[in-house]
Amino acid sequence: MSVVEQETAAGQFPALKPPTRYLFGPGPTMVHSRVYDALSKPIVGHLDAYFIQVMGDVQQLLRTAYGTDDGATLVISGTGSAGMEAAVANFLEPGWKFVVFANGYFSDRLTEMARRQGADVVRFEKGWGEVYSDDEAREFIRREKPKVAGFVHAETSTGALQSGKAICAAAHEAGALVIGDCVTSLGGLPVKFDETGIDVAYSCTQKGLSCPPGLSPMALSKRAMDALKARTTPVRSWYLDLKLIHDYSTVSHRYHHTAPISMFYALREALLVVNDEGIENRWERHRRCHRQFVKGIEAMGLSMHVPEANRIPTLNTVRVPNGIDEAKVRKLLLDGPGIEIAGGFGPLAGKVFRIGVMGPLATDDNVQFFLKEFGKALKAAGYSN
Amino acid sequence: MSVVEQETAAGQFPALKPPTRYLFGPGPTMVHSRVYDALSKPIVGHLDAYFIQVMGDVQQLLRTAYGTDDGATLVISGTGSAGMEAAVANFLEPGWKFVVFANGYFSDRLTEMARRQGADVVRFEKGWGEVYSDDEAREFIRREKPKVAGFVHAETSTGALQSGKAICAAAHEAGALVIGDCVTSLGGLPVKFDETGIDVAYSCTQKGLSCPPGLSPMALSKRAMDALKARTTPVRSWYLDLKLIHDYSTVSHRYHHTAPISMFYALREALLVVNDEGIENRWERHRRCHRQFVKGIEAMGLSMHVPEANRIPTLNTVRVPNGIDEAKVRKLLLDGPGIEIAGGFGPLAGKVFRIGVMGPLATDDNVQFFLKEFGKALKAAGYSN
Repeated sequence: MSVVEQETAAGQFPALKPPTRYLFGPGPTMVHSRVYDALSKPIVGHLDAYFIQVMGDVQQLLRTAYGTDDGATLVISGTGSAGMEAAVANFLEPGWKFVVFANGYFSDRLTEMARRQGADVVRFEKGWGEVYSDDEAREFIRREKPKVAGFVHAETSTGALQSGKAICAAAHEAGALVIGDCVTSLGGLPVKFDETGIDVAYSCTQKGLSCPPGLSPMALSKRAMDALKARTTPVRSWYLDLKLIHDYSTVSHRYHHTAPISMFYALREALLVVNDEGIENRWERHRRCHRQFVKGIEAMGLSMHVPEANRIPTLNTVRVPNGIDEAKVRKLLLDGPGIEIAGGFGPLAGKVFRIGVMGPLATDDNVQFFLKEFGKALKAAGYSN
Repeated sequence: MSVVEQETAAGQFPALKPPTRYLFGPGPTMVHSRVYDALSKPIVGHLDAYFIQVMGDVQQLLRTAYGTDDGATLVISGTGSAGMEAAVANFLEPGWKFVVFANGYFSDRLTEMARRQGADVVRFEKGWGEVYSDDEAREFIRREKPKVAGFVHAETSTGALQSGKAICAAAHEAGALVIGDCVTSLGGLPVKFDETGIDVAYSCTQKGLSCPPGLSPMALSKRAMDALKARTTPVRSWYLDLKLIHDYSTVSHRYHHTAPISMFYALREALLVVNDEGIENRWERHRRCHRQFVKGIEAMGLSMHVPEANRIPTLNTVRVPNGIDEAKVRKLLLDGPGIEIAGGFGPLAGKVFRIGVMGPLATDDNVQFFLKEFGKALKAAGYSN
């Protein structure tokens, strides 16, 4: 009996009993029990000295995760998409030229948000799964001379990882700032914010950091902070105005909005879990599981969508074999062992599975568990190797 | 030893141990243990049928809390201020005349957000703590002929409750929509969305609903939904675009953003707690505790800032007695019994205490506990009756 039927039958709302899920999708991922414990701790007020300290701890721990000494870190009270909008709304003004490396769904979203802010968006189009070479990136930026450039570090819709160094160097040479989408990378693989040269990075909590969704951690370079201070026109979004949020969270602690206390508790704990493991050990664990995953996938006669050099280690795009209905495979996995994976969309609809191996699921045993169940589901859907 | 000192001394981050607080401020308020349990339930994916059902339950339960049969309900993945911004960004366009009943801090925020969206804001100024008579409201709207009118139902900064009926009737007569700020009212006192005639209402989770902060429940009248559909210019905020959010949460369930799963679990449970008590019983419980509170306050020789007819039953503004340092009283309460209350700000800075008696704290025993401790703190700060 489905949840809906239960409710209709009883004429009331059943007790909350989420089904057991193994979250092998692109996110949200599984959450550590320490994080669930933190979520259910009693709240204090949003201006309480204890909460100010929690925000401060989160900012400090985010420096390590992002890899920044000089940058400011802060947290948006919304999901990763709110972080994207904060980046666009604060660092673009109407008429400004914004170049976007457009090779997937999230660069399309970046484009859409920037156009709504009135920016003049120039896109460098590539196929979904492709990346930009250093030369291509440099040439594009030198030719277009933008005020701001945007790229997606780990493109969740394609599984491709875009190196940011050449983009950032060329942008700075042109006097431009760089917005880097780190939604799928932060916590699971190296962002190296300072070393890469990103100016404005945003992420989420429910992927590499293995926390429930709800907040967007950001990092801002000194250059970005100077640009914020120099801005004379008001940011159209008051809720996402980074000057006001930075003042509340870091400077005066004066009331801006009522921060989601419980989610901050959870994020602090998730960052401590990362810290206890050590960020480099965590990256290495994900890389090891990724290699094991790819080995298993190839042994099944399947192939990866993205060439080896450009793969995101935490989010794999596996090509759907000819003649196989990918939705059927996903349904078999969900209804049977309770495994969630995702399909492709846009130009990759029906063509790839998107399989995350991250956070608590990135262990040797879990990879083997997944491969076995995935093989069974493929077979049941008619695949033979 | 303060939290900061502990951290410095240990050279690391201490375990999360929030101090015990009795949240008698304007919000966040205390949270029911059922809600904390729900918060820590394992998450599922944001497109999982189970989560879609959770969103559906929340929407249905919100109808009762808001008092709407015809309206649509949905939830913004941000705090109450994100709800305010969603209202302003979706229902105002550059150059549109927006009239604001300006009698407190949150109508100032509404003004600021609307100006950032390019609206032509006309304010009807009143003192902090005053309200508008039906005649004043009607006359103002008839004279100004706005496209949209905005008022704050329960003004958290002043303790004054503004009746919405005359405002809504006059606005509809003029062909205007009405935005009603229900941040402090929803769940604690009657909003009666349909009966009052509000078109766009937003609220928060951490006041009358006694859930942690993080989401903003909204209600939209049929008139508001029609206006949304008729809008031809894109909403500047993609994250808060209500057409997209309504489509994800209610219509197609196609991906828009990754909703904060755990917070939705918590909100569903908080609404079930409200439902189990019965919304009218809940209002009556708050009214009873309010009367008891005022009786106790007056017996101590203190007076209320707002005249009896216009008081918010869940949020009391008590005048600071002459010569008493209100910050000192608050500090004594926080450091001693762990009671949080708030001071005034803006024109009421230093002049009022803001004391919430809502949710789990709205019981006879808790009111007596508060009055006793408040009396002791006042005495220790030099007050004698």
